[in-house]
Amino acid sequence: MQHFRSIDEAGPDAVRRLLDLADHMAEVNRRPNPKVPALRGKTVCNVFFEDSTRTRLSFETAAKRLSADTMNFAVSSSSLNKGESLRDTIETIAAMGVDAFVIRHKSTGTPWQIAQWTNAAIVNAGDGWHAHPTQALLDCYTIRTAFNRPDGFDGLRIAIVGDVKHSRVARSDIEAFAMLGADVTLVAPKTLLPPETDGMPVTVTTDLDAVLPDLDVLYLLRMQTERMTEALVPDLREYTTRFGLTPERVPRLADHALVMHPGPMNRGVEIAVDPAELPGSVITQQVTNGIAVRMAVLFDLLGSGTLPEASS
Amino acid sequence: MQHFRSIDEAGPDAVRRLLDLADHMAEVNRRPNPKVPALRGKTVCNVFFEDSTRTRLSFETAAKRLSADTMNFAVSSSSLNKGESLRDTIETIAAMGVDAFVIRHKSTGTPWQIAQWTNAAIVNAGDGWHAHPTQALLDCYTIRTAFNRPDGFDGLRIAIVGDVKHSRVARSDIEAFAMLGADVTLVAPKTLLPPETDGMPVTVTTDLDAVLPDLDVLYLLRMQTERMTEALVPDLREYTTRFGLTPERVPRLADHALVMHPGPMNRGVEIAVDPAELPGSVITQQVTNGIAVRMAVLFDLLGSGTLPEASS
Amino acid sequence: MQHFRSIDEAGPDAVRRLLDLADHMAEVNRRPNPKVPALRGKTVCNVFFEDSTRTRLSFETAAKRLSADTMNFAVSSSSLNKGESLRDTIETIAAMGVDAFVIRHKSTGTPWQIAQWTNAAIVNAGDGWHAHPTQALLDCYTIRTAFNRPDGFDGLRIAIVGDVKHSRVARSDIEAFAMLGADVTLVAPKTLLPPETDGMPVTVTTDLDAVLPDLDVLYLLRMQTERMTEALVPDLREYTTRFGLTPERVPRLADHALVMHPGPMNRGVEIAVDPAELPGSVITQQVTNGIAVRMAVLFDLLGSGTLPEASS
Repeated sequence: MQHFRSIDEAGPDAVRRLLDLADHMAEVNRRPNPKVPALRGKTVCNVFFEDSTRTRLSFETAAKRLSADTMNFAVSSSSLNKGESLRDTIETIAAMGVDAFVIRHKSTGTPWQIAQWTNAAIVNAGDGWHAHPTQALLDCYTIRTAFNRPDGFDGLRIAIVGDVKHSRVARSDIEAFAMLGADVTLVAPKTLLPPETDGMPVTVTTDLDAVLPDLDVLYLLRMQTERMTEALVPDLREYTTRFGLTPERVPRLADHALVMHPGPMNRGVEIAVDPAELPGSVITQQVTNGIAVRMAVLFDLLGSGTLPEASS
Repeated sequence: MQHFRSIDEAGPDAVRRLLDLADHMAEVNRRPNPKVPALRGKTVCNVFFEDSTRTRLSFETAAKRLSADTMNFAVSSSSLNKGESLRDTIETIAAMGVDAFVIRHKSTGTPWQIAQWTNAAIVNAGDGWHAHPTQALLDCYTIRTAFNRPDGFDGLRIAIVGDVKHSRVARSDIEAFAMLGADVTLVAPKTLLPPETDGMPVTVTTDLDAVLPDLDVLYLLRMQTERMTEALVPDLREYTTRFGLTPERVPRLADHALVMHPGPMNRGVEIAVDPAELPGSVITQQVTNGIAVRMAVLFDLLGSGTLPEASS
Repeated sequence: MQHFRSIDEAGPDAVRRLLDLADHMAEVNRRPNPKVPALRGKTVCNVFFEDSTRTRLSFETAAKRLSADTMNFAVSSSSLNKGESLRDTIETIAAMGVDAFVIRHKSTGTPWQIAQWTNAAIVNAGDGWHAHPTQALLDCYTIRTAFNRPDGFDGLRIAIVGDVKHSRVARSDIEAFAMLGADVTLVAPKTLLPPETDGMPVTVTTDLDAVLPDLDVLYLLRMQTERMTEALVPDLREYTTRFGLTPERVPRLADHALVMHPGPMNRGVEIAVDPAELPGSVITQQVTNGIAVRMAVLFDLLGSGTLPEASS
């Protein structure tokens, strides 16, 4: 694998290989000393054009566990503010000896554009509303381990609920869940659905309560309230009533059903119960698995092929 | 020791153990290569809700000397600005595999609150006006080594001078100095004394000159001029006249007396002489000792119990 | 060598030794694992009072390749904003155990001033309009390797074109190129020439086209358009016509001539062609060589004298 920019581009073989590799990395992470020398001497550069402390820290931690060096390119204080082009910026950093760029950008397609300018591996850490493939990979890994389903998700019923339209997480999850065989349902008000659902391997509904009891996985998306004005607060209340995980809905979930969220959560909006009190919540586990999955991606892109020992 | 959040909570046995351990770490730091593998594979996360470059760098340096990995959580660019709760933020970072959080926060009690949400060790790097226990520990270590008093401070006369009211350093120093047996005097204008001095193991005076010649340690607090308006500048001048270390006061100090300050200094306010020309100044030594003391705290919390070798 | 603050202060012997050492470091950098333990246990602190992501990352990468620990002192969030003096700030950081400070400051002479307050080695990463000696060193190393001229630049014709007046790069390059024996010509409008050119080992002209065909090296300076007002845009167009590298001028360069630029480039101003399509462009190579040269400087200042192995 040369880059990891979208689930569909990676394809099913790579996705399965990365999930297997994540199993190994998760074992490494359970050791008292989870640091392995697998990528010693490699340099991973985080270039985040949008703030995302959690994703950047997750990649940085994954890189350090593998003993890679990390560079953080602070866009706000960079030459991009002196009129330098994105291309010149990337070519300059690459010339210092970067092995992989981890890119977060508000525009769809930036990771493909950047790959034209450097020989370094590109990892898409979120481009616009388009894709966030390591989030999808960690979501798959979380479902796979929770249900012990290493061979795929055939027959699993997963609902993705909320602001699908603006969500790169949703788009990547749809690709990944469908690729592994799950039945994916989108649950959202019509205004929060993207126009292209016809071409997606999904069922669409506006009735959460109709599908709730049959779900194996309830995947709640973040409502991006920071982009909304005060005038929308009543709508948020209505949103919670129709689409939120409320105390009334919890008992209607199957006993084995998982509740997932990519974070950061808006408590009281898409999730109106304390996830710490939900037996099916794997929200914290998603974060933990993010380290193993990102170690797998970085090792697959930059490693020598020899797996780091996980036994000691 | 599970956490290090205040001197009184840690208690005298832990304080003495940490001071002994700091002796060992100071020896490590005098080597040409002061790096030891004692905490390899451990992750220390600095979460600073108030800027404090010197304290953050001190903890970061201490962690790196012990070969721990460090993460810096930049509050200003974090999800806390997207409305995420402090609890969700801490739980998320903890889920990535953090072994210790170093917390600086403007509110009293935050380190205790945070300890409810994570199994990681908590180090209080300053909470409101309440406590700054690693500063107190480094202050004790500085006095102990300067006077060669490993067994305690019985009979030592220490004056803490200045803005006691707003000072977490003062509160932690009072606890620690008294715990080790020193006689502590607070010297301040009434407006800068806290209401609770009655319950403290201290003597209080407004007359610096009366106590000056008998002091073993003159501990000057920082006047937080950045919180004052221009109108107070005449008061500052009066403050210096009454409570500052002026050229007139220097010869009245005992020859063996130490002059201490937690930094950053307001030259011309609480200290109106150049500390570099004071034979008794150990202000720079305090900073150096801060590394050894913070190494001791991190090793005590996270280490295996086997001390790093200090001999080679 | 105790410090590296200007080319003239270092002198010809040190400059040649550093260029030889950079050759060795460039070999290290071509390995699959370019990390060597040469400075393990040493701490390099970057103190940048002006933003410069590329220079800071270059020094940080160089330090990490040599296994030094790095500290970044963020001026914007530091005690300097609480009124602490530069001296107290430096003395405080130094007391934590810093082996070298890398300093970028807007005022000429700051690296000399700082050296009075600490025993740490000082590397000048740019002081005002005065000097940027590691840039000059990497420029010399780039010319030396491109032309295979390890013994010096006797007879090489180098033109430095553009805003010489405000350029620390130009001043350090003039010192270094002349020291190695090159013939240096400054090409600029009179308004962008400094008053002191009479005392410099240079020829001065306003006619780029007259000297262009005879050049071995065309060194383009950055026009600092961010400091210019909208009213100057027509002048920028005239600047490009008279002093820019335009498509018309490219065929008039000698086949072997190098094109250099310190970055970041203003495409369309000083360079109106795509450097990726210029056979003589070594602009990317300059960035790559910056790592080797800065490794050489840090190793010369802090290393034990035993060169890191470059053969495996």
